[in-house]
Amino acid sequence: MMEQPKRTDISTLGEFGLIKHLTSDFPIQNTSTLKGIGDDAAVLACNDKKILVTTDLLLEGIHFDLTYVPLKHLGYKSAVVNFSDVYAMNGQPKQMTISLGISKRFSIEDLEEFYSGIRLACEIYGVDLIGGDTSASMTGLTISVTCIGETDTPVYRNGAKENDLICVTGDLGAAYMGLQLLEREKKLFDAGEQTQQEFSGKEYLLERQLKPEARKDIIEELKKRNITPTSMMDVSDGLSSELLHICTQSEKGCRIYEEKIPIDYQTAVQAEQFNMSLITAALNGGEDYELLFTAPLGLHDQIEALPGIRIIGHITDASLGCALITRAGNELSLQAQGWNSLKK
Amino acid sequence: MMEQPKRTDISTLGEFGLIKHLTSDFPIQNTSTLKGIGDDAAVLACNDKKILVTTDLLLEGIHFDLTYVPLKHLGYKSAVVNFSDVYAMNGQPKQMTISLGISKRFSIEDLEEFYSGIRLACEIYGVDLIGGDTSASMTGLTISVTCIGETDTPVYRNGAKENDLICVTGDLGAAYMGLQLLEREKKLFDAGEQTQQEFSGKEYLLERQLKPEARKDIIEELKKRNITPTSMMDVSDGLSSELLHICTQSEKGCRIYEEKIPIDYQTAVQAEQFNMSLITAALNGGEDYELLFTAPLGLHDQIEALPGIRIIGHITDASLGCALITRAGNELSLQAQGWNSLKK
Repeated sequence: MMEQPKRTDISTLGEFGLIKHLTSDFPIQNTSTLKGIGDDAAVLACNDKKILVTTDLLLEGIHFDLTYVPLKHLGYKSAVVNFSDVYAMNGQPKQMTISLGISKRFSIEDLEEFYSGIRLACEIYGVDLIGGDTSASMTGLTISVTCIGETDTPVYRNGAKENDLICVTGDLGAAYMGLQLLEREKKLFDAGEQTQQEFSGKEYLLERQLKPEARKDIIEELKKRNITPTSMMDVSDGLSSELLHICTQSEKGCRIYEEKIPIDYQTAVQAEQFNMSLITAALNGGEDYELLFTAPLGLHDQIEALPGIRIIGHITDASLGCALITRAGNELSLQAQGWNSLKK
Repeated sequence: MMEQPKRTDISTLGEFGLIKHLTSDFPIQNTSTLKGIGDDAAVLACNDKKILVTTDLLLEGIHFDLTYVPLKHLGYKSAVVNFSDVYAMNGQPKQMTISLGISKRFSIEDLEEFYSGIRLACEIYGVDLIGGDTSASMTGLTISVTCIGETDTPVYRNGAKENDLICVTGDLGAAYMGLQLLEREKKLFDAGEQTQQEFSGKEYLLERQLKPEARKDIIEELKKRNITPTSMMDVSDGLSSELLHICTQSEKGCRIYEEKIPIDYQTAVQAEQFNMSLITAALNGGEDYELLFTAPLGLHDQIEALPGIRIIGHITDASLGCALITRAGNELSLQAQGWNSLKK
């Protein structure tokens, strides 16, 4: 009898565990490879400049739902989420490639719509489309984007120091609330109910979900003021998850304060209407594409004076772990409950 | 009544037409972007060095069939076909990213197999794995690879000059014959027929299909001898298709000679067994990953003396068109009948 091959379910590791497991045995062979797997982007040396490389795979039915996402928005978002990774390395995106797998149900006009979104993103962010691959697909739409950027001083996830300020841009949780709105609308529609859900007053939530922006403005502002974060990443999977990445890679702990986490008024109203936990949405919602960074304590007053940046806590010794201090003064351990398509 | 939106089928344009149509209105905004869409790889300036970027999307059911492709081989091939694009720009591959969309039927052990193929390719070709994205997929396996390379002197598709020699490395058509062998075996197996098709004596054909190599050796050899091709690309879609790209982009014509096209003995035997046209397989088969290049006539004797390179014809004025001269002396117009997943 033949022995059955061992078969371990992927969900036992999850996305980050799986990548770590599979890529642990890949030694770096080229001196130009400064940073490989494990940050928002890889870093390559090219004389005194550093080249950043980041890539994203977006699959229909997993990352987007074409029943409520217009193709132009999808094109825009596919580009911008990659630009966001480059900004999160303290870089400027310069070039991108886009590969598409297209099933028979898409027409040339559909793809023109998609590319008009890509073009808009390229114009606004000053990025050149330099290549890609286009193929038939047996099933849904497959999108793969790679973005190349440049920086003089890359900022990694592993540079946070004890007592550093923890800062976050914009506000959190709105993109997640936008998604909830769209999902509920879809369910009602599928159930055949006569509903035109009233979206007025909720435009911000929908825009955050459907047409996110990357924080080019913040990177430029920090540069102008000679502020270099000690660590940085973008908030794509949720604040908790990202902060744990920074703390793990920096071998540090952290304390953040519920009352300081920036949340938009519409997000709060919607959480109440849906009877959802607002703080959970803000901590674990994901897709905000805001920047999370740490900076030396000495910059406190300078950073506090900047519009659009909120100081939400500080870095501690690793032994203290990572926790949220609630409004009631309780200490809750931070958990990575954000987006992870490979977890059960 | 609502007007129906216009819906043009993608097959009316095909892959190359579609890409051209969709990307025609993307102006270059960065001075570091030396060459965008339209060659084996894009070219970016970084001081005196040039960075090459190429990407490929491989979809289950379109580009590979897991019923007869072992996952380790698939990993190896996914990497090597991208390295081949970098060599085709006269470059050296240095870094790669790999993104995977994985459905539930894959286990961790399956992915270990796949990554062992990637690792082997990285070792042999000296390439660093620097990143990627891993996600669940609703359907089959999705693979997206981006490769970064370097060169001092990129060789484009548009540099062929009148009277240049047309050269091709290795031999052509074997990978296509390997695919035919595997496809027929699968059909017999599916039909429940008791067959262990005899693959002995056909190992070369299977290897060319399942485990192709990129021509790192040729690029090194040419460099050692100070030979810089005037134009170059790799043969992935078939010799005819590639030669037409070079001639179109260089605004030239060509003559190639049937008797000079390099074909392995096993390929010829198999074509006869299958009652297929050998020259059609060699011209349109695809997936050979050999290099097709042009070089000045004055290098004739030097190139002819190199092992593994065959001079198969010459570049002409555009007015003469692109043709194959058969053994019987007839002139046949070259057609791009190679791989195009988006054509009807």
